[in-house]
Amino acid sequence: MAFEFPQKVLFKHCDPAGIVFFPRYFEMINDCVEAFFDQGLGVPFHDLHRVSAVPTAQIKTQFPAPSRHGDHLLFQLDITKIGRSSADYSMTARCGNETRLITSATLVHVDANGRPTAWPDQIRNKLQTFRGDTS
Amino acid sequence: MAFEFPQKVLFKHCDPAGIVFFPRYFEMINDCVEAFFDQGLGVPFHDLHRVSAVPTAQIKTQFPAPSRHGDHLLFQLDITKIGRSSADYSMTARCGNETRLITSATLVHVDANGRPTAWPDQIRNKLQTFRGDTS
Amino acid sequence: MAFEFPQKVLFKHCDPAGIVFFPRYFEMINDCVEAFFDQGLGVPFHDLHRVSAVPTAQIKTQFPAPSRHGDHLLFQLDITKIGRSSADYSMTARCGNETRLITSATLVHVDANGRPTAWPDQIRNKLQTFRGDTS
Amino acid sequence: MAFEFPQKVLFKHCDPAGIVFFPRYFEMINDCVEAFFDQGLGVPFHDLHRVSAVPTAQIKTQFPAPSRHGDHLLFQLDITKIGRSSADYSMTARCGNETRLITSATLVHVDANGRPTAWPDQIRNKLQTFRGDTS
Repeated sequence: MAFEFPQKVLFKHCDPAGIVFFPRYFEMINDCVEAFFDQGLGVPFHDLHRVSAVPTAQIKTQFPAPSRHGDHLLFQLDITKIGRSSADYSMTARCGNETRLITSATLVHVDANGRPTAWPDQIRNKLQTFRGDTS
Repeated sequence: MAFEFPQKVLFKHCDPAGIVFFPRYFEMINDCVEAFFDQGLGVPFHDLHRVSAVPTAQIKTQFPAPSRHGDHLLFQLDITKIGRSSADYSMTARCGNETRLITSATLVHVDANGRPTAWPDQIRNKLQTFRGDTS
Repeated sequence: MAFEFPQKVLFKHCDPAGIVFFPRYFEMINDCVEAFFDQGLGVPFHDLHRVSAVPTAQIKTQFPAPSRHGDHLLFQLDITKIGRSSADYSMTARCGNETRLITSATLVHVDANGRPTAWPDQIRNKLQTFRGDTS
Repeated sequence: MAFEFPQKVLFKHCDPAGIVFFPRYFEMINDCVEAFFDQGLGVPFHDLHRVSAVPTAQIKTQFPAPSRHGDHLLFQLDITKIGRSSADYSMTARCGNETRLITSATLVHVDANGRPTAWPDQIRNKLQTFRGDTS
């Protein structure tokens, strides 16, 4: 089961060339992950961040085609690997049938001192339900 | 010869966990590429963007350690591959001896209609001088 | 009739002090104005920006209380003055009964060369329907 | 004595209309204030924020003319009023002889709990030296 997140391309996302400024895509990716924790896992980011955090350890992204102001993007997130204190996800953003972004990343669950710490069982079990194909 | 770009970590870059919010790193990366075109290649981005653009086709980034408000980062950029209308670069950001960011990316030189177009000789020749080890 | 725009405070909006970084409020304000043109006036920003633009000429903002990650804000926009090529709005953002932001601003409708140009009648008439108390 | 802060208009600052996106001006304003505390007052923001903070309580800004990619702006900051736990500043940004931004704002010095707290004498005395005309 993939988690879905719609995102319209807004004025603030676009650069003088009229297309999405690529650092803004990473804000959208972060918004999608935040919505996934909130709506998908039932663990709002603002609760999670009282005691821990989930920094991104690595991320690899392709932009096969540009997105323009007003485009309606649909982000889809799948969990591809669950470690003791980490989780890998893959994500795509499409506008209609056209793929605009393909990404894969690793999140690490860290405690208040920034040290990797095991996922709570509640989160681990929920992550399993968003497990997509491992690639 | 690597191109060097210093960047202090500012308040605006940091998140509630007190470390750089990762999408902000991509703004720093873009600022480094903009400074490289201006100071390294002698082609200011605002001139280049009158007739063409250099969107990022893909980017792969690792964050081995977090950066905090006030840290003095040094970005280093090497050109690793030069194609007809593309260029690959590798980049690191260090704080003292600690590596905070390792990235590699592909830029594509496109015309006003977004179609890949050969690098002008002036830019291609300059890119050669920043050629680092191909990895 | 006020135009309403809900905005949850997300991770990306917050600073190391755990509250909304004030420049991020201006992105929210811009998003509210963009949604107002789209949903309120029936003129999506991406259509409008093909032939004209609506830069902000002035803006005055108070932040009576801080907003925190996870807060559910409700923005409300009223048009307070309609000129030949300009429009003033007032806006508030509240979290429950607490006011977090009070702003008033002037937008100017400009042509492709950046020169003030009269509002099209369609927009002018719609602006009237969002006319609130002139203050 | 005014505090001066140069800022080139970069690609990231500009919108599809090719001019500075106004929320980005507020990031520049914040960067100028951060540089002022660091270089002008000798109190780096990252030290200050260990025990206190200086949120913006109100800000009023005019944009008399647009700024474009590549413009070299010079920001100038004057302190116009010093209260027990607050300080007002006025700021302008010019490109050559043309004024692009005029702002005035109130900062409040707050403790770790967000409560207004008196400026330390060291900061108060330094603020005096940047006292410009009260308007």
